[in-house]
Amino acid sequence: MTPRRQSRRAPVTSPAAATVFTTVLTQGPVSRVDVARRTGLSSAAVTKAARPLIEAGYLAELDSEQGGVGRPASPLEIRAEREFFLGIKITDRELVGVVTDLRAQVLLTRFHPLSSCKLDAVVDGVAAMVTELLAESKSYKQRTHCLGVTIAGDVDRESGHVRYSPFLHWRDVPLADLLAEKVDLEITVDNDVKAITVAERWFGNGIGADSFALVTLGTGIGCGLVVNGRVVTGSHGVAGEIGHIPVFGDGPLCHCGATGCVEAIASTDAIVDQARTTTGERDLTIDEVITGARMGDEALRRVFARAGVAIGRGLAAMANLVGPERIIVSGEGLDAYDLFAAEIRETFGTQAFGAAAHCELILRPLPFEEWARGAAAIAVQTLFLSATTPGAVWGQPSPTRR
Amino acid sequence: MTPRRQSRRAPVTSPAAATVFTTVLTQGPVSRVDVARRTGLSSAAVTKAARPLIEAGYLAELDSEQGGVGRPASPLEIRAEREFFLGIKITDRELVGVVTDLRAQVLLTRFHPLSSCKLDAVVDGVAAMVTELLAESKSYKQRTHCLGVTIAGDVDRESGHVRYSPFLHWRDVPLADLLAEKVDLEITVDNDVKAITVAERWFGNGIGADSFALVTLGTGIGCGLVVNGRVVTGSHGVAGEIGHIPVFGDGPLCHCGATGCVEAIASTDAIVDQARTTTGERDLTIDEVITGARMGDEALRRVFARAGVAIGRGLAAMANLVGPERIIVSGEGLDAYDLFAAEIRETFGTQAFGAAAHCELILRPLPFEEWARGAAAIAVQTLFLSATTPGAVWGQPSPTRR
Ligand SMILES: [Zn+2]
Ligand SMILES: [Zn+2]
Repeated sequence: MTPRRQSRRAPVTSPAAATVFTTVLTQGPVSRVDVARRTGLSSAAVTKAARPLIEAGYLAELDSEQGGVGRPASPLEIRAEREFFLGIKITDRELVGVVTDLRAQVLLTRFHPLSSCKLDAVVDGVAAMVTELLAESKSYKQRTHCLGVTIAGDVDRESGHVRYSPFLHWRDVPLADLLAEKVDLEITVDNDVKAITVAERWFGNGIGADSFALVTLGTGIGCGLVVNGRVVTGSHGVAGEIGHIPVFGDGPLCHCGATGCVEAIASTDAIVDQARTTTGERDLTIDEVITGARMGDEALRRVFARAGVAIGRGLAAMANLVGPERIIVSGEGLDAYDLFAAEIRETFGTQAFGAAAHCELILRPLPFEEWARGAAAIAVQTLFLSATTPGAVWGQPSPTRR
Repeated sequence: MTPRRQSRRAPVTSPAAATVFTTVLTQGPVSRVDVARRTGLSSAAVTKAARPLIEAGYLAELDSEQGGVGRPASPLEIRAEREFFLGIKITDRELVGVVTDLRAQVLLTRFHPLSSCKLDAVVDGVAAMVTELLAESKSYKQRTHCLGVTIAGDVDRESGHVRYSPFLHWRDVPLADLLAEKVDLEITVDNDVKAITVAERWFGNGIGADSFALVTLGTGIGCGLVVNGRVVTGSHGVAGEIGHIPVFGDGPLCHCGATGCVEAIASTDAIVDQARTTTGERDLTIDEVITGARMGDEALRRVFARAGVAIGRGLAAMANLVGPERIIVSGEGLDAYDLFAAEIRETFGTQAFGAAAHCELILRPLPFEEWARGAAAIAVQTLFLSATTPGAVWGQPSPTRR
């Protein structure tokens, strides 16, 4: 990543400091002794790394009032309100923005409809939302330095470029640079599903899971993937594109240019398209399609069943290739889950290879606020990003050392 | 893993010792100072961990003759012939066995035809091969303590069970336990492709690649996968099963019970089956099919072209999901590469999502000896297996610390 703004950072300037900081952030309160044990660092190295973080107010010693200051056994904890973070998720219809603390806990949420998907309008909208969020509190204004922005599609976090956004119809947009002209914060841009997986991994249900996938169904079908305790980002910036696994061979053409993709059959748009073709009713909406199917329309039910088969095949492909402990299925498409749940599970069961069938499938709704929280989580990561290798920031301290 | 035999081990008894040992093994010669820098351990911890390894003859100090003994800047290196390792790969037709040194360099290779795929016959064959390999040299006999055995299919390394071997028609065979009754060595059993990926990762072309896949074409279609510097083993013991990604939908039934798998279309057996069906010649061999296709038989050429499409879709699924830096395609099926190379590349190009198309496809033959070397590499791993977490043995020291 090219940092947008080098200033007022937490003093996380070495790999050891980053390790200590992230260990306390995700596993704290935890004593220096335990930090050392879990990370493989020496006690002296932990103490040395913690000192400037305590001085800058990012870490605190729990026992300090009992006179335990500086003792190796005193638990360290994060001072979560030392710094605030903004997260904004861009969709084709609205912006969702949050203010969070250091642990990515949401303190404030705002929704803004988008009147246009044009780049200028969206950039202005994001800038206006930043102003509004910061205006809510003097503390936010004073102690917010980082903004995370997420969007569906192919995003290069390093350069801050949106390479391809299928729903906003953007290609090769230098979003971070454009925002930096209007927003005086350090800006990180990333794929929305990857970001929410970071939030789950660091601050949510993913804590402790060595390997899991978060699949989102909806306008797009995306997936965040954690393997060996770290989010998979892809050597070329692409990973987790379960929506573009070719499971229907020469099947329908996908907007990505390929054929037979999961998304070409099971995305919300694909379901509506197939329903319109099947019924000849060209104005059907997704809500009408769902209602019709629930009322027993066989043709519409078959559309969902086929979507379920495509999703089940995609999930099986992932289980067979990567073998996650569990797969969490979520997203707005989950509204219609009753219409394809049986096909998803049945197809997954048939196509999963051997013990891969033991992979747990979990359904979980994901409120829109959670998406913006993911954006804030990648903003939190910028605190220790420059102190570590790019790979390292995507995971927790290596299990080798725990 | 349940160790088969706890004896005469290298003194790798702590995570720090395992880290030092593996760093010198894979990156040596390297000074204590550099080991500390690369691993995040303190110099004192490195010195403490190295001492018993030097005393036991596993590590040596390069400068010791110049009086530099014990100095932090003296390079440490592995004494590769301190211990020898046996690796045996089981196929449905033969056993391939090697003796290697600590760096998994092959010192001796033997091939034994198998007259039967029956469990008893194979176990006896492996035992006989062990005896023969060790009889080659007094040093081998004295300094060999570990045997690695690999086989295609679903293998649980922890328990030493072969859950499913499609080519030997085994299910739930406690192979490690059965071998332990006849062979007085510590035995590790694992999937053959995973093992060869370990060898590539630790001692071969994979050094330094953060993420790569090794795909093998042949009787089976397998894949070893390294992500974030570590081999992916699957939370439920299954991973890298690219042969069982459903890319042809309701296509042909696969021996695994699913439909449309890559392997059901592109394995050697599947190609022969389709050629026999197409031509009506029920005794065609793979060599005849290849020759016929090369001589221009259109029906046979279409069989290979379809296999190429299936493989290309499987590779694209992997690139879209995991995003490896490069994919190495190998295996005996590579003999016919000229007949489907164009379709593999074309399909991959069309189905790869966005920048995933930048993933490099490399073709590389893999001699049978290399497979047995993979088996020896997992035997080498047993030296430091019990000192680290299961996940850790599959990778090099975490990039977080390098
Ligand atoms: Zn697609
Ligand atoms: Zn299969």
